[in-house]
Amino acid sequence: MTLRIITTGGTIDKVYFDAKSSYEIGDPMVTDILDEGLATVLHTVQSILKKDSLELTDEDRQLIYDAVLAAPERHIVITHGTDTMPITALKLKSIVDKTIVLTGAMAPARFRRTDAIFNIGCAVAAAQALPAGVYITMNGRLFEAGKVRKNLDLGRFEATE
Amino acid sequence: MTLRIITTGGTIDKVYFDAKSSYEIGDPMVTDILDEGLATVLHTVQSILKKDSLELTDEDRQLIYDAVLAAPERHIVITHGTDTMPITALKLKSIVDKTIVLTGAMAPARFRRTDAIFNIGCAVAAAQALPAGVYITMNGRLFEAGKVRKNLDLGRFEATE
Amino acid sequence: MTLRIITTGGTIDKVYFDAKSSYEIGDPMVTDILDEGLATVLHTVQSILKKDSLELTDEDRQLIYDAVLAAPERHIVITHGTDTMPITALKLKSIVDKTIVLTGAMAPARFRRTDAIFNIGCAVAAAQALPAGVYITMNGRLFEAGKVRKNLDLGRFEATE
Amino acid sequence: MTLRIITTGGTIDKVYFDAKSSYEIGDPMVTDILDEGLATVLHTVQSILKKDSLELTDEDRQLIYDAVLAAPERHIVITHGTDTMPITALKLKSIVDKTIVLTGAMAPARFRRTDAIFNIGCAVAAAQALPAGVYITMNGRLFEAGKVRKNLDLGRFEATE
Repeated sequence: MTLRIITTGGTIDKVYFDAKSSYEIGDPMVTDILDEGLATVLHTVQSILKKDSLELTDEDRQLIYDAVLAAPERHIVITHGTDTMPITALKLKSIVDKTIVLTGAMAPARFRRTDAIFNIGCAVAAAQALPAGVYITMNGRLFEAGKVRKNLDLGRFEATE
Repeated sequence: MTLRIITTGGTIDKVYFDAKSSYEIGDPMVTDILDEGLATVLHTVQSILKKDSLELTDEDRQLIYDAVLAAPERHIVITHGTDTMPITALKLKSIVDKTIVLTGAMAPARFRRTDAIFNIGCAVAAAQALPAGVYITMNGRLFEAGKVRKNLDLGRFEATE
Repeated sequence: MTLRIITTGGTIDKVYFDAKSSYEIGDPMVTDILDEGLATVLHTVQSILKKDSLELTDEDRQLIYDAVLAAPERHIVITHGTDTMPITALKLKSIVDKTIVLTGAMAPARFRRTDAIFNIGCAVAAAQALPAGVYITMNGRLFEAGKVRKNLDLGRFEATE
Repeated sequence: MTLRIITTGGTIDKVYFDAKSSYEIGDPMVTDILDEGLATVLHTVQSILKKDSLELTDEDRQLIYDAVLAAPERHIVITHGTDTMPITALKLKSIVDKTIVLTGAMAPARFRRTDAIFNIGCAVAAAQALPAGVYITMNGRLFEAGKVRKNLDLGRFEATE
C-alpha cells in the first residue's frame, strides 16, 4: 500500500510574511506533519497548486482530476482549501477504483493551535480504510462527496440530506 | 454514529512533575486533541486506567475487555501504552460486531513535538471506516490484531508475518 | 516594582480569520505569554491600539506617548509592530524618569514557531534592569532609541552609528 | 558584547525516553530557543553538566565556578535546575566584574507549554542590562544571589527578607 498525497494549497499551508504583512501559501506542511507523526506508511507527496480554494478555476480542478487519474496509487489524499472542497470532491466522483480523501484545515498548520495535524491523521487512515470512492474528512468526521457542505456560519463541515 | 473513547494511560497522557522530578500519567489528553482538531464527531470519553502498558495486569486487561463489551457504541477507540498494545488487542479479538482501534504515542501529547495528535486522528477515522474487528494504528498505518508488533529497536510498529 | 505593559498591535498579536482568508490583529498575546512564563511579576496590561505599525499616525503615536506619561509605573513595556518601532521609540525619548522598552515579533505569537515569547522575556527583564531611558529589544539585543533601525532585507534589528 | 551561556542540566533540558519510560536530561535547549527567538546577539554555548540540580555535588559547583571564572566574557547566562539554583548562585558570589544570571524552567523546554523560552529571554536581557553581580531570573522577576529562595509549595521563586 502506497499513498499518494496531492497538495493544492489552502489555509493548511499558509505562512505569514512579515515584510508584506500578508499571508500566503507556502510549501506543503503535510511532510512535516507526517514526520512528526512518525509515519512509516509509504507515500509520495506531489504539490500541484498553491491556491486558496476560492481562487481555484475549472482548469485547476481539471489539473487535480488529471493528477489523481494519472497516479499509479489507489489510495489518494488531497490537501485543499476548505471553501470549495466539496466542489472538487464532486468533480472527482467519476473516478472509480480509487479511494480519494480530501482534507484541509481551518487554521494554518504553522499555528500553535491547528486542526491540520488531526485532519491529516484522519485522511491518512481513511484513505487506507475506506472502499473506493471520494470522501472529505473534516472535524473528525467522514463525508461522502456530494453529501457534504461547509457551514460558513459555524465554521465546520456537515452532512447534507 | 457515536464514538466511545476509552483511555488506559500510557506515554500519550504523561505529564512531568517538577516537584518530584518524575513523569507520571495525567488526565487523558484525547479531549484536548479532539478540541484542537475541531472534532464535531459525537463521542464519549471514558477513563478506566492510568498505567504504563508494561504495568497492566490480566485484571486490567479484563477491565478493558469488559468496558468495550459494555459500551453501547459499535465504534471504539482505545488509547493505550505502546509496549503491550498488541497484547491487549489480541485479548479483545473475541469481541465481534464492534470496530475497535487502539492507538497511543511514542512522545507525550503534552510535548511540542508528538505523534499523539496524528495518531488520534488516524484512530478516529479508522474506527469509523473499518469493518468490525480489532486494529492498531500507529505510524500512519493500520494493523490487524495478531499481526503486529512493536519493534523496540526502531521504535515503531510493524506487521508480523 | 510594578510593570505597565501597553499594547499597540503589530505582528505579535495577529490572528488568522479563515472566513475572510485574512490576517488581522487580535487580542494582546502578552497576557498568555506571561501566564505560560509563570510570571509573578506585578503588572498591568493596557491595550490602546490594534494596528500594524505602518498604519500608525502621528495621533496614534501621541496616544502612546500620553499613555506612557500618564502611567503611574516607572517600568514600561510596549508591544508594537516592528516596521516603525524605532520611530515610536524616538517619539518617547523626551520622557525622563521612566525605563521604557519596546518589543514586538517577526512571527505572530499564535504561531508554533515565533520570536514573540523570547522577546517578551527580554522586554520584561530589560524594563526592570535598565536605567531610565527608551530602548528596543529584538533579536536578543538591547538598543537605545535613536541608535537602531530595522534591516528589512535581513529581517532583523541592528545598531546605527 | 558577547554572551557566554553555560548549561548544567535541570528540568529545562529534559527529554522523555519511551523505551525506558524515564525522563533524562538531553542536549541543551538554549540553542533552539535562541534560534526561534531570532537572536543575533553574539554568544557561545558551553555544556558542562547534565544533572538535576538536586544531584549537584560540591565538585560540580566548583566546576561551574571555574567555568565562569575562566570565561573571557563578562556577561554570563547559566541554565540550571531550579531546586538548588539559589545555592549555586551564592557559590558564584565571590566572582566580581561579571554579570552572571542563572535561570531554568519548571516545565521542560520540549513541552508545548513551558516557561523555558520566556525565562531564557529574561536571562539574555538581564545579563546584558544588569551591573556586575550574581542574579537569578525566574517568573519574570530578577533576584540577587543570597536574597531568593524557591518556594516548593507554590512552585515559584520569591525574595527572602
